[in-house]
Amino acid sequence: MTANPVWSVDPRTGKQRERVAAEATHRDVDRAVRAAHAARAALAGAATRAAFLRTAADLLDGSAARIVESADAETALGAARLTGELARTTGQLRVFADCVDEGAYLDVRIDRADPSLTPPRPELRRYKVPLGVVAVYAASNFPLAFSVPGGDTASALAAGCPVVVKAHPDHPATSELCAALLREAATANGLPADVVTVVHGFDAGLELIRHPLVTAAGFTGSIRGGRALFDAAAARPVPIPFHGELGSLNPVVVTPAAVAERAEEIGSGLAGSVTLGVGQFCVKPGLVLVPTGQDGDRLAAALAKSLAGTEPGVLLDHRMREAFLAGTRERAALPGVDAPVAPGPGGERSVGAGFLTVDATTLLEDGPHEVLLEECFGPVTVLVRYADQSEAAAVLGRLGGNLSATLQLSEDETRGAPGPAAELISLVTGLAGRIVVNGWPTGVAVAPAQHHGGPYPAATSHATSVGATAVERWLRPVAYQSVPDALLPAELREDNPLGLPRRVTGPGA
Amino acid sequence: MTANPVWSVDPRTGKQRERVAAEATHRDVDRAVRAAHAARAALAGAATRAAFLRTAADLLDGSAARIVESADAETALGAARLTGELARTTGQLRVFADCVDEGAYLDVRIDRADPSLTPPRPELRRYKVPLGVVAVYAASNFPLAFSVPGGDTASALAAGCPVVVKAHPDHPATSELCAALLREAATANGLPADVVTVVHGFDAGLELIRHPLVTAAGFTGSIRGGRALFDAAAARPVPIPFHGELGSLNPVVVTPAAVAERAEEIGSGLAGSVTLGVGQFCVKPGLVLVPTGQDGDRLAAALAKSLAGTEPGVLLDHRMREAFLAGTRERAALPGVDAPVAPGPGGERSVGAGFLTVDATTLLEDGPHEVLLEECFGPVTVLVRYADQSEAAAVLGRLGGNLSATLQLSEDETRGAPGPAAELISLVTGLAGRIVVNGWPTGVAVAPAQHHGGPYPAATSHATSVGATAVERWLRPVAYQSVPDALLPAELREDNPLGLPRRVTGPGA
Repeated sequence: MTANPVWSVDPRTGKQRERVAAEATHRDVDRAVRAAHAARAALAGAATRAAFLRTAADLLDGSAARIVESADAETALGAARLTGELARTTGQLRVFADCVDEGAYLDVRIDRADPSLTPPRPELRRYKVPLGVVAVYAASNFPLAFSVPGGDTASALAAGCPVVVKAHPDHPATSELCAALLREAATANGLPADVVTVVHGFDAGLELIRHPLVTAAGFTGSIRGGRALFDAAAARPVPIPFHGELGSLNPVVVTPAAVAERAEEIGSGLAGSVTLGVGQFCVKPGLVLVPTGQDGDRLAAALAKSLAGTEPGVLLDHRMREAFLAGTRERAALPGVDAPVAPGPGGERSVGAGFLTVDATTLLEDGPHEVLLEECFGPVTVLVRYADQSEAAAVLGRLGGNLSATLQLSEDETRGAPGPAAELISLVTGLAGRIVVNGWPTGVAVAPAQHHGGPYPAATSHATSVGATAVERWLRPVAYQSVPDALLPAELREDNPLGLPRRVTGPGA
Repeated sequence: MTANPVWSVDPRTGKQRERVAAEATHRDVDRAVRAAHAARAALAGAATRAAFLRTAADLLDGSAARIVESADAETALGAARLTGELARTTGQLRVFADCVDEGAYLDVRIDRADPSLTPPRPELRRYKVPLGVVAVYAASNFPLAFSVPGGDTASALAAGCPVVVKAHPDHPATSELCAALLREAATANGLPADVVTVVHGFDAGLELIRHPLVTAAGFTGSIRGGRALFDAAAARPVPIPFHGELGSLNPVVVTPAAVAERAEEIGSGLAGSVTLGVGQFCVKPGLVLVPTGQDGDRLAAALAKSLAGTEPGVLLDHRMREAFLAGTRERAALPGVDAPVAPGPGGERSVGAGFLTVDATTLLEDGPHEVLLEECFGPVTVLVRYADQSEAAAVLGRLGGNLSATLQLSEDETRGAPGPAAELISLVTGLAGRIVVNGWPTGVAVAPAQHHGGPYPAATSHATSVGATAVERWLRPVAYQSVPDALLPAELREDNPLGLPRRVTGPGA
C-alpha cells in the first residue's frame, strides 16, 4: 500500500506547487498519538510550557516572511491579511503563556477541614489536570490562527496537553512549516518535539478521533465534517469531548430608527464585513434583517454600490468555489428572491461578491426558502426585508445557533430610548455566543471576556475557542481529600510555592 | 391506550404499597417540557431563585418525618441514613441559594476597550446565561440527595433552568411528595409550579432526552442506562450535553508500610465503608490492593471479622438483589478467586455482605477475571493481593475512570518519607476525580472544592455533580461587544447594580 501524496496547490492558478507529504496511514496516526502521549509528563512544568509557547511565538514571528509567503501561495488570502493573522497567532501564543504564568485557569479551591459541621467536613483541595493528547482539526480559512499554531493548539499546550494536528488540505506546506517551528520551540526548551505533530489526510482525521489515547478534540470547519467527527467522538467506547465550531449564519438586525439614521453607513459597512477575506469568515454576516420601506432601500442601494465595486476574489480552493456558485445559484433561483448584485463567477478562478433579497413573509413560508437559513460560505449575504418587529422576531425564531448576532441601533436606542432594542437583545442572547451592537461581527478579539462559540451548530459544546477561557476545554478537576502536604501537587500546597490565585473557604480562611 | 400504573413497592416485603401515578405518555412528557420551557423567564431573577431554593429547603425540612417515612418504606435505607440524607439535600439547596446570591458562578469578565492595540480591541463583557429546560434522571440509591430535590435539580434551578425530573421507579411516592413541596415553594415565591415537574417511566426518560426543548441532562445511575441516554443525547439533531455519573470501582491501595502499621484498623474501616447503605454507594470501595504477606493477611482477617458480624441488609429492589447474587456468584466462581466471607442471600429479601480475594497475577491474566474490574453494586469488595509496587501499578493501569481513589499510607509516608506514595498519588490522579488519603471514599462533602466526577465511565463529562461548581453545567457564556450600558443585562452594567464579583482587564481596570 502506497500512501497518497499530499500536494500544496495554488488556488489562484489551480496548479500543484509541491508535494509536501504523504497522507498518514493507520500506523502513522498511531505512532504520532503514542509519541504525543509519551511526551505528556514533559509538559507538566508550567514554567517550561510558558517558555515554550513564547519561544514558539518568537520563532513564528522570526519566520514571518516565509510563513506569509507560503500561506498566501496556498490560500490566496493576501499578504496583508496573513501578516495580521500571524500577529494574532503569535499574540495568542503569548496570551496563553501569560495565562499559564498567572494560573487562574487552574481554578484552585481549598476548603479547610471543618469538624464543627454535621457530618464533619474533611479538607478538600481542588485544581485541574490536563486531559492528555488533544486532536486538533485545522480550519481552511485561517491557515495560522485556527490551524497548526492556532488557538486550539496554543490552549491545549498551555493546559499541558500534547497535540496532534490534522492539517487542512488547503495549506499543507504552511502546516508543515509551522509544525517544524513549534517542534523546534519545544526542543529549544528541553521538551520532546512530539508535543506537537501534524498528520495529513481525511482518513487520518477519523483514525485520530477514534484513537484510544486521544482525550479530546478541537475542530473548526463545516457542519458536515464536524458532525461526522462529533458523532465518532461520542460513539467511542470511551467518549471524549469534541469542541467543534461548525457553522453560523451570524444574523444582523437593523432597526427602523437605525436605518433612518445611517442607511448608507450600514450598507457600506455590511459590504466590508461580507467581503472581508472573500467572505470566508465563520462570523460573516449571512442574514440581515432590514426594514421594508425607503430607508431600507437606501441601505440596499449602498450595499449594492459597495459590492458592485468590489474586485472578484479567489476562494480557498476549487471545491469551495463550486459550492459557492452552486449555493448562490440555488438561492437566487427561489421564488421571491432577487439578486440586486448577483454573486457568481469572477474570472476563471475567482468569484464576485453579491447579495440576495427576500421578504420576511416569503422566507417564513415552509418550503424551499429554508436554505436561506443555512450558511453559504463566501462573499454573499441575504437581506430579509421585514415589515414590523413581530416579523423580525419570527425570522430570528427560525434560526439555529450562531457564533454572533449583531444589532444596528439608532443613537437614541443605544441610550435606552423605548423601542425594539431591549427585546432584540434578549432574543439574540438566546441564539448566539456574542452580541455586537453597532459594529460588525468579523474580527474576534483575543481577550479574557471573549466568547467564540454559541448554541449548536455554531458550536458542539459551550466552550469558547478564542480567548483565555479556551484553555478550560483541555482540563478536568481533581479534588484531594485529606492528602498530606508532602504528597500534594505543588499547585495545592499550603505554602503556595507557585503563588497561584486560590479560593479558600472554611475555618481560618 | 391506557398508561401503565406506577406502584410504590416495599423492598422489605416485596409488596406493592400504593399506586402513585401513571407512566408518562409521549403527550405527558411534551406537556411537562413545554410548561417548563414557558416557565424559564420567571426564573430569570436571581433573588427570586435564591428565595425559592431556601423555601424549598424549609418545606422539605418541615415535612422531614413524612419524607423519611416514605423514603424508608420504598428503599429500606433506614430512618437514620435518610434523615441525614434529607439534611444533606436541604443543605445543598441552601448552598446553591448562597451561590446564586454570591454570583461568582456567572464568571463575569469585563475587558475595557483598548484603542491602543493592533487591531483596536472593542469593549467585551461576558457572563453566563441559563441553557433552558434541564432533564434530571433520579438515582436509585439516593432517593433525596440525587433525586427529585437533589443536586442536579438544585444546581439547575440555581442556574435559572426549569427542571423535568424522570423519577426512579424505586421511590415514586417519595418523588411525588418532594416534587409537590418544590412546586409549593415555587408558587410561594411567585413562580410557576412547572419550574419543576416529575415524570415516571422508562420510555418517558427516552422521550425526555429527545425532546427538542430539553437543553441538557443530569443523570446518576448505571453504565447501561446512562450510556443509552448519553447516546440518545449525542444523536439528536441538536446534540445536548449529558452529565452522567455511570459507575465506579473506587480502587483503594494499601501500602506495605500502612498495613504493617494499621492492618486491623484498615480492615474494619473498609468493612464499614463497603457495607454503608448496604453497599449501594457509587463511591463504595470495590477493589482493594493489599500487599501479600502476613500484614495483609491480618487486614483480610479483620475485614472478615467485621463483615461476618454485619447484619444482612435489604437492597433497593429485587432486581438489584438478583444482580448482586448473580454478580457475586459469577466472580466467586472464577479460578483463583476465594471468598473468605461469601456474599450471598441473607433472608428471603436481604443479602449478606462479603468479600472476595484474588492474586494480582491472576487478575492481570487476560480472560474472565476482567469482570472483577467491573463495579458490583451491593455489599461486596475484592481484595487484590499484590507482591510489589509494579504489580499494584499494573492493576491500576487496567482500570477505567473512577469517582474516587483511596490510598492508605503509613504515618511516615504521609510525612513524605521515601516510598511508593508519590508514585501512587500520580497514578490515581490519572484515573479518578477525587483522591482520598487515610480515609474512605464514602461520604461526599458538599463543598466548594469538591469534585464528584472522573474519567469515563465515572462520568460522561468533566463536570462535577456535587459541590458549588455543579451549577456550571447548566450555563453557557455570552459575550457582549460594544453593547451600550442601557441595553446590557444588569449583571454586566458598569455600575454593577447586583454587586457581582468580576474580573476587569484593559485600560483603567
